[in-house]
Amino acid sequence: MDTAQISLESLLAQRRKFPALQNKKYLNFGAQGVMSQSAIDAILETYKFVQKEGPLSGKMFSWILKHCRELKELLCAEFGGEPANYALTQNATEGCNIILWGLDWQPGDTLLCGDSEHNGVMASVYQLCQRKKLNLKILNLAGQESDESLLAELDSAFNQNESQMPRLFLFSHVLWNTGKVLPLEKISRLCREKGIKTLVDGAQSAGVLPLDLSKAGADYYACTGHKWLCGPEGVGFLFIDAAALECIEPIFAGWRGSKFGPLGEPLGWLDGAGRFESATAAFPLLSGLKEAIKVHNAFANQKARYELIKKNIECLKKRLSEIEGLKLLDSGSLSGLLSFSIFGKDDMKLLTALEKRSFILRTIPNPPCLRVSLHYFSKPDLEGFVESLTEYSQS
Amino acid sequence: MDTAQISLESLLAQRRKFPALQNKKYLNFGAQGVMSQSAIDAILETYKFVQKEGPLSGKMFSWILKHCRELKELLCAEFGGEPANYALTQNATEGCNIILWGLDWQPGDTLLCGDSEHNGVMASVYQLCQRKKLNLKILNLAGQESDESLLAELDSAFNQNESQMPRLFLFSHVLWNTGKVLPLEKISRLCREKGIKTLVDGAQSAGVLPLDLSKAGADYYACTGHKWLCGPEGVGFLFIDAAALECIEPIFAGWRGSKFGPLGEPLGWLDGAGRFESATAAFPLLSGLKEAIKVHNAFANQKARYELIKKNIECLKKRLSEIEGLKLLDSGSLSGLLSFSIFGKDDMKLLTALEKRSFILRTIPNPPCLRVSLHYFSKPDLEGFVESLTEYSQS
Repeated sequence: MDTAQISLESLLAQRRKFPALQNKKYLNFGAQGVMSQSAIDAILETYKFVQKEGPLSGKMFSWILKHCRELKELLCAEFGGEPANYALTQNATEGCNIILWGLDWQPGDTLLCGDSEHNGVMASVYQLCQRKKLNLKILNLAGQESDESLLAELDSAFNQNESQMPRLFLFSHVLWNTGKVLPLEKISRLCREKGIKTLVDGAQSAGVLPLDLSKAGADYYACTGHKWLCGPEGVGFLFIDAAALECIEPIFAGWRGSKFGPLGEPLGWLDGAGRFESATAAFPLLSGLKEAIKVHNAFANQKARYELIKKNIECLKKRLSEIEGLKLLDSGSLSGLLSFSIFGKDDMKLLTALEKRSFILRTIPNPPCLRVSLHYFSKPDLEGFVESLTEYSQS
Repeated sequence: MDTAQISLESLLAQRRKFPALQNKKYLNFGAQGVMSQSAIDAILETYKFVQKEGPLSGKMFSWILKHCRELKELLCAEFGGEPANYALTQNATEGCNIILWGLDWQPGDTLLCGDSEHNGVMASVYQLCQRKKLNLKILNLAGQESDESLLAELDSAFNQNESQMPRLFLFSHVLWNTGKVLPLEKISRLCREKGIKTLVDGAQSAGVLPLDLSKAGADYYACTGHKWLCGPEGVGFLFIDAAALECIEPIFAGWRGSKFGPLGEPLGWLDGAGRFESATAAFPLLSGLKEAIKVHNAFANQKARYELIKKNIECLKKRLSEIEGLKLLDSGSLSGLLSFSIFGKDDMKLLTALEKRSFILRTIPNPPCLRVSLHYFSKPDLEGFVESLTEYSQS
């Protein structure tokens, strides 16, 4: 669908499906997405179904397996690959943790990380490096002017003697602080050439950009369902390239990811990425993520949604650039995120003042700024936003 | 409340609160508990609230912290201790994994495990021992005739030269296969005397037996909310004794368990057990567990509920013992579980036949048997059960 064909009317109709959009101006999808009423209803119906038919019996155990498989099939349709490429997780951080701790690190090994990773993931990275006695190298990504300079920086990090070659490169596809989009395919290709595994934090990309993980070349790609996909909090997924599966072993293992013999004796792992699923999870919530993905696709496909997101961001960027004293953190690329600060104004006070006017966004600690997230249906939420910022900048 | 004062009428009224009890004979609480309509409603109301007020803003972030703290306060009222003793998890397996992988194991260390642990937990134990090069010792618990012989067996496992002394003893408070109740306080005391940490799998005890974890003496006690407590699947908790907190470090770390400086730089862990909570979880489901615990307590306290459970089990045990060819796996103690097999009958065929008659229970792989779970309100679900078994045993 050409985005020009999407009428304001259909956009407003789509917005009416989301209760959270009805009483505020929600600009915080990078923190958490809004759930459609139909996604909430799907969860409720699943709870009813589970109680009516079970909750747990031979029949319902089969249903759980089918229910998980159906979500993975939907993820394949959206993000490529086969169901065996997907492990269901709670969130993107868990996906990163599964890979970070699942590699058979040796003391002295090197882990390479981007310089703009989420602080929660970095808490785990520091802990990993301390416990496993790893060398942590941080790559300057945020400061690169172009994809070429970024790739050159990466290449120079690989020009090491063998003992210092990184085993894994962890980076975000879209940087959470500035919204910068990294050249995923090019980075992945370079890493593969050098024999370095890639772990991608997709928290700010899945549901924003068109993604075909079967072709992107990343070994491990961790996503969450509760941000741009607008699913329930607590359901995420981890894509694992088949060739990279055996390099990682389950750490937090359990009944879901294991094979058992007739006496219940553990006999190794399931064949695919499902081996990283541990034990009982909030299965009814999977219905919420399924429905959330369907609601987006019933409106427009990934590509068309991304076009709308980019239009929204471009439009806002232009208008913000006209505000005196407002500094845009222009990343030179377009995702769903746009960050800025206003000279002489405290970010937190500005956030609170905006929240009082029903504009919901968030602050980012580094570099200190405010971050707006715009979804494909967000345009009407910008009404009065630029005016409010202009007013504050002059006060 | 004296259990004699609990009328059939009030029991039936309590049962009507659970949709799953209305159309079948549910005897499978050890696998998964039934949710009350009010617990489902509480979850739905929380989803509505979250969408109305957020989903995520400064105000709603504070609400999440309050929401988690309130559940922990309720857990304190039910199971003792302070909120700082509790980490919210997905299930009991995750609680065990946090401890198993969080200890700073050295190659050659010894891990001691009971011989009747859940196979999902054992999958993780084997993986841990292989990766960390640990000695795994299995303690004969199931075969002990008395608490005294069990404690003597344990004591003999501790009479080792120092290099072979276990660092951690993992055991279930109630064995999942036979329902045997282990003497938690005595085991914990002996282990503390020897300087050995205790990790208890409480999947079959929390919500069955009266528990005061602040006095039981276990260092780590892992529970789930979705079995005997009748909360939603995907919400559990891990109790950590304050003195044992620093022996374990977070592995799957994230934003929830970490402290950060002004630029978002990780500054170590939260003060209490909350440091083991990683990232975004299914927060609305916490309302379901809160409500589930309240529904039980509004009926009777832990002690009175346990008395009813014991009566139900004793009554069933007596009647099953009268069936010719039926072999009870009499554990010599009373929990909510009772296991048996019928001579010459295939467990799985028997299970399927019973499920066709609306009796929901499960098989156990080792020793091969069927397992019935009875809750305090389960008596009416036994109607026709003994008759069905008698019939099958004679067929």
